[in-house]
Amino acid sequence: MERVKALRQKVFEEVDFDGFLITDETNLLYFTGFLGAACLFVPKTGESMVYVYSVNYEQAKAEAKGFEVVLVKRGEDLGVKIAEKVKGLKLKNIGLDSIAGVPSVANYLKLAKLLRGTAKIKVENEPVRALRRVKDEEECKLMRKAGELTGVGMKAAYEAVKPGLREYEVAAEIEYAMRKRGSWGTAFETIVASGARSAFPHGGCTDRKIGNGDLVVVDIGATYQHYRSDMTRTIVAGKPSAKQKEIYEVVRQAQEAAFQAVKPKAKARDIDAIARETIEKAGYGRYFVHGLGHGVGLEVHELPTLSQKSKDKLTVRNVVTIEPGIYITGFGGIRIEDTVLVGKLKAEKFTKGPYTLEAK
Amino acid sequence: MERVKALRQKVFEEVDFDGFLITDETNLLYFTGFLGAACLFVPKTGESMVYVYSVNYEQAKAEAKGFEVVLVKRGEDLGVKIAEKVKGLKLKNIGLDSIAGVPSVANYLKLAKLLRGTAKIKVENEPVRALRRVKDEEECKLMRKAGELTGVGMKAAYEAVKPGLREYEVAAEIEYAMRKRGSWGTAFETIVASGARSAFPHGGCTDRKIGNGDLVVVDIGATYQHYRSDMTRTIVAGKPSAKQKEIYEVVRQAQEAAFQAVKPKAKARDIDAIARETIEKAGYGRYFVHGLGHGVGLEVHELPTLSQKSKDKLTVRNVVTIEPGIYITGFGGIRIEDTVLVGKLKAEKFTKGPYTLEAK
Repeated sequence: MERVKALRQKVFEEVDFDGFLITDETNLLYFTGFLGAACLFVPKTGESMVYVYSVNYEQAKAEAKGFEVVLVKRGEDLGVKIAEKVKGLKLKNIGLDSIAGVPSVANYLKLAKLLRGTAKIKVENEPVRALRRVKDEEECKLMRKAGELTGVGMKAAYEAVKPGLREYEVAAEIEYAMRKRGSWGTAFETIVASGARSAFPHGGCTDRKIGNGDLVVVDIGATYQHYRSDMTRTIVAGKPSAKQKEIYEVVRQAQEAAFQAVKPKAKARDIDAIARETIEKAGYGRYFVHGLGHGVGLEVHELPTLSQKSKDKLTVRNVVTIEPGIYITGFGGIRIEDTVLVGKLKAEKFTKGPYTLEAK
Repeated sequence: MERVKALRQKVFEEVDFDGFLITDETNLLYFTGFLGAACLFVPKTGESMVYVYSVNYEQAKAEAKGFEVVLVKRGEDLGVKIAEKVKGLKLKNIGLDSIAGVPSVANYLKLAKLLRGTAKIKVENEPVRALRRVKDEEECKLMRKAGELTGVGMKAAYEAVKPGLREYEVAAEIEYAMRKRGSWGTAFETIVASGARSAFPHGGCTDRKIGNGDLVVVDIGATYQHYRSDMTRTIVAGKPSAKQKEIYEVVRQAQEAAFQAVKPKAKARDIDAIARETIEKAGYGRYFVHGLGHGVGLEVHELPTLSQKSKDKLTVRNVVTIEPGIYITGFGGIRIEDTVLVGKLKAEKFTKGPYTLEAK
């Protein structure tokens, strides 16, 4: 309810809407505490309403505390129902979210048509994004726990990686270790990318057998009460070569320098630049083919964005990844990543684990 | 490439587009074999182009076989790039997909603006949906394997469920068993919903301790090479009661009757009705609060839809779930689900597992 209050402030006082519709599934979870609502309608005055299909109705009543829960019966049309509510309340200016590309174009066009001549609708995703990028105390607690569980998974990775094992077998050990300790699932599809595949930043996890001396990029995340974490270490199966060690040190220094620069009001692109310059100076600039990091929360990619083009500034209680990498086709890739809380005085790593190429 | 050929047939011959844009991530995987492209542009004549950001460029070149791979450089705008291509080819009538609500409203509006006065654009998701709902031989093979791995997970569930264990601990055993045998991950967030929570069809998986005599709804899916599976069994922790057994038998009969009715040309709503009538006759009609099933493939929810309102007809090589359930607030819920291939002569269950309430 605190969050809906903050939304009201954003969209009714700072922006001139008289009703706001939340349709994105994660935003719905954020505002209602319940995963599975069809939409949330917040009028400028009066009760907010959570619309739910029958399959989730009982659960919504139990979990969406403090909200009026409206059943969308079989055969009823949600768009028509919302349009009627807007007309009934004589609202004229409706905003709606679309962080994740929801509502679909078709639903958007349909609702616009239903309201033609009655009310304007406009997609405005900034208000909710702005709320979600600043984590409250409770969110920090859950993300700290998610980070801790991710560390448990990474420990399992260091113990599991060895020549002859398949990538998915390493993933099995990681995910099992996290789950057994209380993880709610994986924050994204586990990456265990070995050998030449380690040079693909999004290399996934296949049935490839890990070879002796292979670089293995392990990019994993636990979740806790829907909050996510994101962490990467690169491990060598066997004995690291001199070249692997050299590149590892460059990435490590880039990550540490960027981490040290994380503070409120810092420009996101400046943090990216610090890591990038470290890598460029070592001669590997063209192999760092992605941005330095991204916000994390209920979703694994949120604001702010840490990249060369970003216009974001860090603020207190943003949670971001710091993940420089060097990817050389044929040779392989090395990435080091932590999930980091922007603190008032200093940054805090939610993910903790060794900085070494050497398996256990 | 066969699939792009089929798309060309659909959108250039059956519909009058002269270019088609694929932006949905799963559709991109379906057509290019590569997960991570920004979009695929198929002009009526000439080469199809896969647009990729630098982070995935090397991987796209290795995996998107047979396509021209275009790098979207840092600072370049994908929308502008596409609009230029459309103008350069003098195309007038562009279709685009939006199965999963992609492209976002904002991107859609932007592209429409860029092309104003030059070409019309129209969201048309039916052609791709129509292609994806009919699985080819290769897809059936992968889904059969995903189903087999799901069965391995369900076996682990029957062995794990017991009073005193937490829901997530059961999930850990299930997911570990599937992964160790080669699963690529979970097809959706594992559901282990026990006790009163079993009455929520989408009850998730929490740290609740399973009680003696609890119903435990276990809804799981393995994936294999991106193809998904979906299976539910309901297990009692301890000794099933007479009432639990009675309701179980009703659900079991409903599922079996519906499965027997699965055949090409059957109306999806008739299959739903067969299960629903079985449950209604037993007096539990109002507790079956969702549709009977849905298509499965690269996504866990695809076409056709098996529900009371569905207008879909089954065709050969559709893959659907059959999943009746009875959910009684306070008492708990029972669901039985399999993933089923619509065969020319008879239906085939991709998921196999015991039909019993009793844990091992």
